[in-house]
Amino acid sequence: MGISLGELAVRFGCELRGDPAASVDRVATLADADSHSLAFVANPHYRRQLASSRAGAVVLDAASAADCTAAALVCENPHATFARIAAVLHPHPVAQPGVHPTAVLAPGARIDPSAHIGALSVIGEGAVVGARVFVGPQCLIDEGATVSEDVRLTARVTVCRRVEIGARTVVQPGAVIGGDGFGFALERGRWIKVPQTGTVRVGADVEIGANTTIDRGAIEDTVIEDGVKLDNLIMIAHNVRVGAHSALAACVGISGSTTIGRHCMIGGQVGIGGHLTIADKVIITGCTMVSHSIPRPGVYSGGIPLEEAHVWRRLVARFKRIDSLATRLKALERHTSRGPDQEEQDD
Amino acid sequence: MGISLGELAVRFGCELRGDPAASVDRVATLADADSHSLAFVANPHYRRQLASSRAGAVVLDAASAADCTAAALVCENPHATFARIAAVLHPHPVAQPGVHPTAVLAPGARIDPSAHIGALSVIGEGAVVGARVFVGPQCLIDEGATVSEDVRLTARVTVCRRVEIGARTVVQPGAVIGGDGFGFALERGRWIKVPQTGTVRVGADVEIGANTTIDRGAIEDTVIEDGVKLDNLIMIAHNVRVGAHSALAACVGISGSTTIGRHCMIGGQVGIGGHLTIADKVIITGCTMVSHSIPRPGVYSGGIPLEEAHVWRRLVARFKRIDSLATRLKALERHTSRGPDQEEQDD
Amino acid sequence: MGISLGELAVRFGCELRGDPAASVDRVATLADADSHSLAFVANPHYRRQLASSRAGAVVLDAASAADCTAAALVCENPHATFARIAAVLHPHPVAQPGVHPTAVLAPGARIDPSAHIGALSVIGEGAVVGARVFVGPQCLIDEGATVSEDVRLTARVTVCRRVEIGARTVVQPGAVIGGDGFGFALERGRWIKVPQTGTVRVGADVEIGANTTIDRGAIEDTVIEDGVKLDNLIMIAHNVRVGAHSALAACVGISGSTTIGRHCMIGGQVGIGGHLTIADKVIITGCTMVSHSIPRPGVYSGGIPLEEAHVWRRLVARFKRIDSLATRLKALERHTSRGPDQEEQDD
Repeated sequence: MGISLGELAVRFGCELRGDPAASVDRVATLADADSHSLAFVANPHYRRQLASSRAGAVVLDAASAADCTAAALVCENPHATFARIAAVLHPHPVAQPGVHPTAVLAPGARIDPSAHIGALSVIGEGAVVGARVFVGPQCLIDEGATVSEDVRLTARVTVCRRVEIGARTVVQPGAVIGGDGFGFALERGRWIKVPQTGTVRVGADVEIGANTTIDRGAIEDTVIEDGVKLDNLIMIAHNVRVGAHSALAACVGISGSTTIGRHCMIGGQVGIGGHLTIADKVIITGCTMVSHSIPRPGVYSGGIPLEEAHVWRRLVARFKRIDSLATRLKALERHTSRGPDQEEQDD
Repeated sequence: MGISLGELAVRFGCELRGDPAASVDRVATLADADSHSLAFVANPHYRRQLASSRAGAVVLDAASAADCTAAALVCENPHATFARIAAVLHPHPVAQPGVHPTAVLAPGARIDPSAHIGALSVIGEGAVVGARVFVGPQCLIDEGATVSEDVRLTARVTVCRRVEIGARTVVQPGAVIGGDGFGFALERGRWIKVPQTGTVRVGADVEIGANTTIDRGAIEDTVIEDGVKLDNLIMIAHNVRVGAHSALAACVGISGSTTIGRHCMIGGQVGIGGHLTIADKVIITGCTMVSHSIPRPGVYSGGIPLEEAHVWRRLVARFKRIDSLATRLKALERHTSRGPDQEEQDD
Repeated sequence: MGISLGELAVRFGCELRGDPAASVDRVATLADADSHSLAFVANPHYRRQLASSRAGAVVLDAASAADCTAAALVCENPHATFARIAAVLHPHPVAQPGVHPTAVLAPGARIDPSAHIGALSVIGEGAVVGARVFVGPQCLIDEGATVSEDVRLTARVTVCRRVEIGARTVVQPGAVIGGDGFGFALERGRWIKVPQTGTVRVGADVEIGANTTIDRGAIEDTVIEDGVKLDNLIMIAHNVRVGAHSALAACVGISGSTTIGRHCMIGGQVGIGGHLTIADKVIITGCTMVSHSIPRPGVYSGGIPLEEAHVWRRLVARFKRIDSLATRLKALERHTSRGPDQEEQDD
């Protein structure tokens, strides 16, 4: 389905430099694009590829437009504009409303007639599936769960009982929303399971990645606010709250009862302890351990980049003796009649 | 279903301070509780909320009871007692014995008549499902696997062939028990798969979290002993043994052939190398790398808490030059006629 | 099914020291083996168990053969030879060609008549399943996906639309191949989803572990080359390329657009940043953070082994003050008329 550049410029508020009658029908990288492809430049780093690109048109900002020999769709935020145009050029395959004959519906499930329920999906008693919801194959929406309008459960998604999912949220395969929280009481060396009587409330416009798990609350609910984006293989423990429009990269783990602020960005493999509070607009770089609350916005780190193994071994050996280093330095300071710094007097 | 405080006191061995005829029908937090709710105080930190709580009754210990204006169920271990009462107030929905018509049973599967087999579950040839087992929707119990009495596979659990699961064990959705171990022989730069001929034996009263994976043994079996609690997204490699009543938080990875002792507690995202032995009663805090065996009980750590990024970058830069620091210190010691410490003489 | 040692020696190119008419019918560890079992010694560490083993035969190299009292199958690479013999002694159960009556096939799916499609699997429109493919129960091969000959999807594997899987590749349960990449454009504090129009191309002879996720590319494809071995719970982000015959241990996370070379070995829980290039034959030990490209083969590390918690706390406290240590050392150097090292002059 080709779309003319003129139409794109009007619909997406771009300034067009080029022939409005020319059209594109797919997206491509600058390097791979042909005359029917739309590419984009969001990072000035790629600007130098503009000269050699055969793209039919390029979405970019005014600063990059000077280098563009192809037709240019000039806008303020090329990445966002490109995302919107790509969604038009590459729409999801249209799913027919209706229930696949192999899906299993409890008698009391309420399915909007405009929803699509895929092959071998199971909808439990009292579950509610809203308008235009897409439930792919092999999903489970368990008893009493609510899935709001325009949600997309791509395939093999597990929505446990009483979980609520807000409008337009997208869930990738293998995600588990509402498994029991990890709650046990210790009694003479044995663990006694604490029933997890809360549930999970997922807001609108959320994305949940493949094989990510979000546990139900122990008593109150686990909450994922509107617009949150969760990558794959993330663990959200019971009673966590993730603030609106925060984005978490893959393999992040958040322990129980921690609150993440709004508009946070959390890098891959970050581990966050329990019962902490992270302020709004906090950025945490990858592989960081967070063991205390973060009361102020800012960028935080805790990972140490690698070295060749023999160098690293030596660094670690020195680190393990850093106490001796400090002690010897203090002795030397005394010896040379220089007192230790104020900071060191509590040693 | 309301239960009188008098009955709770008798059944759970508490001293009741309050009206035995009053009743509660759900659990709640101190802050949210109403007159029909039961709350608890296990952590003295929450004691100050007692005065303002509207709870119908509170489970707590004698030390906290003095501050309690509501009815008090006084006991030694409030968390454990609360867990037991909550299980009575919030029982699992009763599952009818029997096999859902859409479940697929191999002719030679042996299903106890009191077991529940959910929609679209598959039970393989020779598999055995014990009394009162709950198999939720979309589970797989593959050929020759054994699931003992009162086990609960919540939904979409994969139990691979020949795996054994002990009584009362609970498995959350997405868990995979008995996938092939990661065993390959290297030959001229190519990997040759080593058949994984062992299986997994899971004990009684175990909990296995959502999307956790436990690999089958290479030759002998992978073993999870009685009472072990595994959180979500944990990786247990082939031939690992996890000792009884140990609890592992989310995202822990344990490499092949490692033995974890009994009554251990392992924090989130801990990584444990292969062929190691961890003693009983070892506690490892989150984000720790374990690269050697731990022969003695104790608390072990290895994670460094985060800093603001600009501070952290400076710390890392200094750390990367710690060798130079040590060398310069030694030179200075020589210069001031102080010999290096004994510890440093092997440098 | 017993096989004579004579036949094994001929088929697998070993020198037999023992009775060619004796036979073995299963594999075992040296410690557990009986007279019908085949064991192996690949690691000299286990050589001392040879004297007490009751194995019917042992696969080992010439150096170890001297210590072997049982029949010996002597070869250059005992681990690889053992792997091949084990595959013969413990073949996969034979799966009947054909489609299980509960599987759901789109009208336009093309299934080779020699393929096995298990119970409750779903094959989408236009999907192609090659000769002798084994599709276990509850798998999904979505629209337009291609699964080549002799592939083995053990159970509950999700192959998303248009994904390609090469010959003989094995996928463990719960793996998700082709979920959407984590691509969002930021616009005034909100995230706009960037359609992920690429797919995933998995080569031949690949292994993909349980609950591992491989995201589809944003525009171009994510690529796993021939012979790659991926353990469980690994995250491969969009547009990553993993070079042929590389092996990644469990819980590794690779961020978007990174290229891993050929013949690399990456330890458990390693985190690799985005847009990096890792050379061929790079070995990275477990728990390492990789935040820059690695242009040369070699062994790289970044994890610090644990200590007892009280020792570790002191090390961390010192580390957090390493700046002060360096400053004080420099002051002392000045005081004793020794200038700072060249390296430190930019401080």
